[in-house]
Amino acid sequence: MSLIVVLNGPNLNLLGSREPSIYGRVTWAEVRERLQHIAEERGVEIEFFQSNHEGAIIDFIQGLSGRANGLIINPGALTHYSYSLHDALMGSEIPAIELHLSNIYAREEWRARSVVSPAARGVIAGLGALGYELAMEAMLGIIEASQG
Amino acid sequence: MSLIVVLNGPNLNLLGSREPSIYGRVTWAEVRERLQHIAEERGVEIEFFQSNHEGAIIDFIQGLSGRANGLIINPGALTHYSYSLHDALMGSEIPAIELHLSNIYAREEWRARSVVSPAARGVIAGLGALGYELAMEAMLGIIEASQG
Amino acid sequence: MSLIVVLNGPNLNLLGSREPSIYGRVTWAEVRERLQHIAEERGVEIEFFQSNHEGAIIDFIQGLSGRANGLIINPGALTHYSYSLHDALMGSEIPAIELHLSNIYAREEWRARSVVSPAARGVIAGLGALGYELAMEAMLGIIEASQG
Amino acid sequence: MSLIVVLNGPNLNLLGSREPSIYGRVTWAEVRERLQHIAEERGVEIEFFQSNHEGAIIDFIQGLSGRANGLIINPGALTHYSYSLHDALMGSEIPAIELHLSNIYAREEWRARSVVSPAARGVIAGLGALGYELAMEAMLGIIEASQG
Amino acid sequence: MSLIVVLNGPNLNLLGSREPSIYGRVTWAEVRERLQHIAEERGVEIEFFQSNHEGAIIDFIQGLSGRANGLIINPGALTHYSYSLHDALMGSEIPAIELHLSNIYAREEWRARSVVSPAARGVIAGLGALGYELAMEAMLGIIEASQG
Amino acid sequence: MSLIVVLNGPNLNLLGSREPSIYGRVTWAEVRERLQHIAEERGVEIEFFQSNHEGAIIDFIQGLSGRANGLIINPGALTHYSYSLHDALMGSEIPAIELHLSNIYAREEWRARSVVSPAARGVIAGLGALGYELAMEAMLGIIEASQG
Amino acid sequence: MSLIVVLNGPNLNLLGSREPSIYGRVTWAEVRERLQHIAEERGVEIEFFQSNHEGAIIDFIQGLSGRANGLIINPGALTHYSYSLHDALMGSEIPAIELHLSNIYAREEWRARSVVSPAARGVIAGLGALGYELAMEAMLGIIEASQG
Amino acid sequence: MSLIVVLNGPNLNLLGSREPSIYGRVTWAEVRERLQHIAEERGVEIEFFQSNHEGAIIDFIQGLSGRANGLIINPGALTHYSYSLHDALMGSEIPAIELHLSNIYAREEWRARSVVSPAARGVIAGLGALGYELAMEAMLGIIEASQG
Amino acid sequence: MSLIVVLNGPNLNLLGSREPSIYGRVTWAEVRERLQHIAEERGVEIEFFQSNHEGAIIDFIQGLSGRANGLIINPGALTHYSYSLHDALMGSEIPAIELHLSNIYAREEWRARSVVSPAARGVIAGLGALGYELAMEAMLGIIEASQG
Amino acid sequence: MSLIVVLNGPNLNLLGSREPSIYGRVTWAEVRERLQHIAEERGVEIEFFQSNHEGAIIDFIQGLSGRANGLIINPGALTHYSYSLHDALMGSEIPAIELHLSNIYAREEWRARSVVSPAARGVIAGLGALGYELAMEAMLGIIEASQG
Amino acid sequence: MSLIVVLNGPNLNLLGSREPSIYGRVTWAEVRERLQHIAEERGVEIEFFQSNHEGAIIDFIQGLSGRANGLIINPGALTHYSYSLHDALMGSEIPAIELHLSNIYAREEWRARSVVSPAARGVIAGLGALGYELAMEAMLGIIEASQG
Amino acid sequence: MSLIVVLNGPNLNLLGSREPSIYGRVTWAEVRERLQHIAEERGVEIEFFQSNHEGAIIDFIQGLSGRANGLIINPGALTHYSYSLHDALMGSEIPAIELHLSNIYAREEWRARSVVSPAARGVIAGLGALGYELAMEAMLGIIEASQG
Repeated sequence: MSLIVVLNGPNLNLLGSREPSIYGRVTWAEVRERLQHIAEERGVEIEFFQSNHEGAIIDFIQGLSGRANGLIINPGALTHYSYSLHDALMGSEIPAIELHLSNIYAREEWRARSVVSPAARGVIAGLGALGYELAMEAMLGIIEASQG
Repeated sequence: MSLIVVLNGPNLNLLGSREPSIYGRVTWAEVRERLQHIAEERGVEIEFFQSNHEGAIIDFIQGLSGRANGLIINPGALTHYSYSLHDALMGSEIPAIELHLSNIYAREEWRARSVVSPAARGVIAGLGALGYELAMEAMLGIIEASQG
Repeated sequence: MSLIVVLNGPNLNLLGSREPSIYGRVTWAEVRERLQHIAEERGVEIEFFQSNHEGAIIDFIQGLSGRANGLIINPGALTHYSYSLHDALMGSEIPAIELHLSNIYAREEWRARSVVSPAARGVIAGLGALGYELAMEAMLGIIEASQG
Repeated sequence: MSLIVVLNGPNLNLLGSREPSIYGRVTWAEVRERLQHIAEERGVEIEFFQSNHEGAIIDFIQGLSGRANGLIINPGALTHYSYSLHDALMGSEIPAIELHLSNIYAREEWRARSVVSPAARGVIAGLGALGYELAMEAMLGIIEASQG
Repeated sequence: MSLIVVLNGPNLNLLGSREPSIYGRVTWAEVRERLQHIAEERGVEIEFFQSNHEGAIIDFIQGLSGRANGLIINPGALTHYSYSLHDALMGSEIPAIELHLSNIYAREEWRARSVVSPAARGVIAGLGALGYELAMEAMLGIIEASQG
Repeated sequence: MSLIVVLNGPNLNLLGSREPSIYGRVTWAEVRERLQHIAEERGVEIEFFQSNHEGAIIDFIQGLSGRANGLIINPGALTHYSYSLHDALMGSEIPAIELHLSNIYAREEWRARSVVSPAARGVIAGLGALGYELAMEAMLGIIEASQG
Repeated sequence: MSLIVVLNGPNLNLLGSREPSIYGRVTWAEVRERLQHIAEERGVEIEFFQSNHEGAIIDFIQGLSGRANGLIINPGALTHYSYSLHDALMGSEIPAIELHLSNIYAREEWRARSVVSPAARGVIAGLGALGYELAMEAMLGIIEASQG
Repeated sequence: MSLIVVLNGPNLNLLGSREPSIYGRVTWAEVRERLQHIAEERGVEIEFFQSNHEGAIIDFIQGLSGRANGLIINPGALTHYSYSLHDALMGSEIPAIELHLSNIYAREEWRARSVVSPAARGVIAGLGALGYELAMEAMLGIIEASQG
Repeated sequence: MSLIVVLNGPNLNLLGSREPSIYGRVTWAEVRERLQHIAEERGVEIEFFQSNHEGAIIDFIQGLSGRANGLIINPGALTHYSYSLHDALMGSEIPAIELHLSNIYAREEWRARSVVSPAARGVIAGLGALGYELAMEAMLGIIEASQG
Repeated sequence: MSLIVVLNGPNLNLLGSREPSIYGRVTWAEVRERLQHIAEERGVEIEFFQSNHEGAIIDFIQGLSGRANGLIINPGALTHYSYSLHDALMGSEIPAIELHLSNIYAREEWRARSVVSPAARGVIAGLGALGYELAMEAMLGIIEASQG
Repeated sequence: MSLIVVLNGPNLNLLGSREPSIYGRVTWAEVRERLQHIAEERGVEIEFFQSNHEGAIIDFIQGLSGRANGLIINPGALTHYSYSLHDALMGSEIPAIELHLSNIYAREEWRARSVVSPAARGVIAGLGALGYELAMEAMLGIIEASQG
Repeated sequence: MSLIVVLNGPNLNLLGSREPSIYGRVTWAEVRERLQHIAEERGVEIEFFQSNHEGAIIDFIQGLSGRANGLIINPGALTHYSYSLHDALMGSEIPAIELHLSNIYAREEWRARSVVSPAARGVIAGLGALGYELAMEAMLGIIEASQG
């Protein structure tokens, strides 16, 4: 059975309570449940990870080699400076989709630039919590195609 | 019945034959059929438009006011300089999702910057033709929420 | 009789309904009527043109040679990238006044830079629809001076 | 009776003799007379001030609070660096029109950038001495609208 | 028989009358005649196209696929911002030579940068109308080499 | 009783021994004692935290919600790149004062720019260990005002 | 008896009435009284100076040599361009603390850069009128240390 | 006996398997063995440390004070943004050599800039795993010289 | 008899006491005496002016028209931002030599750029007080040449 | 008889063997022969010069004054920094055509900028060895026109 | 027998006497002797070259083709602008190691950027004269590997 | 007897004939004669050198050590890129004055920046051939001062 991993970076554990005018009011528990549901329906395993520690995220990504088939990653603000995360994604050969809840291209200037994107297969931004479900769908497509 | 419009900019009529190593081999006819299918299934109308003319695209967007409920737009290379397109989207009050077949953030430096994004609700990039289906899904969600 | 041309670029046909907090609520029909009135009073002919198509605007400017005495141009968002418009103005030898409804120097950073201005005689910005009347006045002065 | 103030910055006392190929040959006395005439005709008071001293200009602007209804300001070269002037305009709540005799956007690169514009209602440039009359007209409109 | 296409962008229909101190006094009719002559002599077909519309130019380039063997393109001021034109050239697989009448590298700073060049085989600039004949010669060489 | 938290970032545990010509010779133990003293005098609780780990700092800030009334933060060199820290401060709604021992605006160019400041209420820099006492004073004022 | 000087630059005489949402509603008279009080309590003399004239501020700073022991300076918008003020501070050998009422690092981009800071001992920003009292405290510490 | 420490940053634990076309196929175990061998031969102690956690690396560097004589550090992608690492190296007074397996100056633009280099004695890049042995040699020279 | 004016900007009244390691220990009185002496010897009048007020300097320059034959100007730190001074020099038609005591091109980066130089005939920098005598010599040459 | 000079800069002596995937496999001897042939046919003299020494190239250009009628110059990598070469071309009054074998605008970013172009009449790039023949043709046209 | 070439650029003949605080006091004769010794020990030939002439260095590199197996190059200040040197290294297919005595990344900003590095295999900087010996070692490794 | 060396860089041998509108019509022979005369009068030796070869200029400067007391250098266009010349001046300990015939700060943007100035004592620009005489005077002063 394929494994899809959903990885959230710094401050994303606060989904639903942190700056709701920007990030919405859906909680992470709710998002998680929906993703779990999709996974079951589609016959894949799903695993969740969140950390405020760049190092822990890199440790985790390294540990996915050989066991995960796809990665959905919302790097939080690491998006804008963590070249280490970029390199971890490049080093792992797991296809990754970068996800942002808000439209990072329409906020502060520094948010419009992601140092992680060049290591990702694709990017979804600004579609709120629904974005995770779409990323899930996209990842299922990528996995199918690669197993084609 | 809600109307979702799918709008493609310059050179996107060639989907399937143009630089397939970057843009894939799926043709626009195939993508269109799938979107038509989703629309029927979900009970919305769908309309397609493509032009290589910035002006024609703006004319078309202006004509959508009052009749379209959502816009999925792949502006092609207009993405990188057409402030007129940005203003047309701002002027229309139809929610828009910006879509790119390839991961524009991982190619030439000038492709990583979109002047259109600040006028869009969200962005999907790098997920190939499947991106259109995901955008469709997202737009259905946005419409539902607004009709909530 | 002298001919003054008033040329509006992309999205300016929507004056009065588009983003009224920025562009005001006066409609183009009203502005046009006032300008017509001034023209009659001052004994000049006036002609109006609007297009969302950069190419149509350039075609039109080329066609003015030898018949127009002055041009009042609001290039809309073409202001910020259309070097072709710049060259069309340089190529025509008709004196031009660049006009903006809003104060483009006090909004997004990219709006503060006009690639058209170096081809214009002068610039009026931020004075709303009244700006057209002032530009009319200024153009009458320029024409008189040149016929001096 | 409303009061409109016309304020000129450094080197503008030399109008008519300074670099006439750029600034024209009309003298300040002539411009002043015309503005005085308009003011009388339109039933407003008008007051003039010129200084080469940034500090004196700021003192003067501060002193206008509560007695002036509109400000027409040609900041001379202070345009390009005097953030103090910007702050003085922001602090006063008098509507201001920024005016330049020459088309500052078509000269040296540093002249194309005004640090004052974000504190102004609108900008008129490149229309020579006539620009003052147009600014007068525009200011009368602004005052009327505010007294609406 | 091979087909070589000569494509001119915005404002180039005015050759001979537009800013002759920069672009020379030879008219387009004269240039065309000379190129026609060379084509006949060398046994190739030649076709001409000019438009002020970016969109029309892209439509035209798309239509060349499978029938043209080489493209000589003077993009006019589109040179400096039309990434859509860049993409159209990339999408077509016809070898292209970019041509400029004036030495664009020795004029305004913005003219020194072409967004089209990376999609062209080579560039000829500053040699006036003769440049078209040289480009013709070069294209004949490229076609011969490719037919090896 | 109000709680004020004093948070030090990377390398600040070495206060007193690290580059004393820049950071001074007062040890952290001494500073801490003084702050403890002020807290007692002013009837507030005080808590200290230092870490070289960005992630641990973010974890800690998240944990302060609902129990701390003010935050005095010296982010060390995280100041210059940790957008995650910026977001953590924005997410928490605790008022924060950013503090630097040295005058960061008068050293290397990269030190003059703080990505954290936009999320802080105010900034104190260059006043050595005394700065902490001043920040304490300021925070007491902010808390009083908010409890007004 | 030591003398501490408090120097305010352009537009700061309007404290309490100018843009109160940014600068607060405390008047300068109130701030002054508090500082006077602290001075008396701590046994130092205090002197106040405000001017909208850069030149007058420099004259004043030059006149402080040999009689002032510390300078608290809020340069207003001179902060962002007055290299003359920078040089005046460097030339005087009186220790200076730069003060800003608002958090200049969290407003317009140009406000985040101070050309004066490299000539100051330290900086306090964003703490409103209380900042002056803290600067007073800091300056007393600096004077004591230097008299050590 | 002198102690030389070899410190590897994020993702360097994967040496030999991660992007071998860039980083080579030698494993870290092999490199380590060789360095151990050199250390024995040259009569120095050697210690190894790797972490994906910036904070752990800084903790470790702080702990070296007073017991290590030299540091060979490959900061991985922290090279390009970790000012905290820069400060940790400055704070420790242990001489450090910065090492990169690949030629970072010949890859992506962002890799060509190291924020760590100004805190290092020297830099070795692009010489693969052999670089560690050379750095060892260099460090032995530095230690000898300092004990000279 | 020709008149040469020597004009010093902000902080230059302190010559001899201000930062002597940079500006030297010669006092302005001494420099003045030497210049007076040269003037007498060469049969020209000389006049001195110093001010810390940009406005006063501009007033003074305006007053020189028609009576001064040459201007030696050390603008102090106004060099780096006073476009008003630039315009005052352009407006006067008196030939000017810009002078700096220190080598401004070898100090802080911002000192290497003069906004005044484009309005000067020539520049002398880094030669200390002797620079004034050389500028005197140069100005005598310029005056002689112009009197041909 | 007119004299045309063909001048090659650094590394161009290796034509045919150096990086043939970029510069082609035609040798310089072959190119030279063809140019010699054209010269004979067209009744002009031709002279060749190559050097890896910027100074020798400048010496040579200076020596052409009064004897050469046109210069075809491929400056090699001097193109990108040799302002001395720019000045030598400006100083000589011989018309020059700048030539590059490869399309320098489609390679590394630094290659897209020529400091020599502003001193040349025109530029030919990317057309391989054939470019020399075209430049020859263009130069013959320029010489004829000038002798017209 | 393999040949390794050691090439020094401008001003490196003065090693030992030029700015010894930066470049050390070891003379080139001493370095040379040590390298000679290593060469003998390791059974390779070694050859030395120094020139202050960019052209002579390029001539020399061209002459190495087919006879040298490795190049150790310290380009001196050519490092920072000689694209010709870059191209000479690219053109030769001899593996090259770039060497700097001082840590160029920790000095003036312009020294931190090498235009030569992209053409080198690796870089060694800041390790003084010992750097040459390490480069020698590295080159021996590269040669061995290539002779596999 | 002291020795002053006057060194001219590329293209300066053409003084009097090269672009006389910029560089004047005085020939180098005339300038040389005047300098010779001054030298004799002031009892110093003088030596002249000109080369178009950067390398020859560096060789020459190196050869001055121990025999020259001052250097007057007009680096021609090497001014703008020759860091090697900068280093040669730094390495020699002879005081140098940088000289330019024209006002390099008032011409093309690239001419306003000298990479040589940080290695010079002072700079004289824009004073034509007379500048050499002033530099001579200044150098005599520097030599006297150093000989105390």
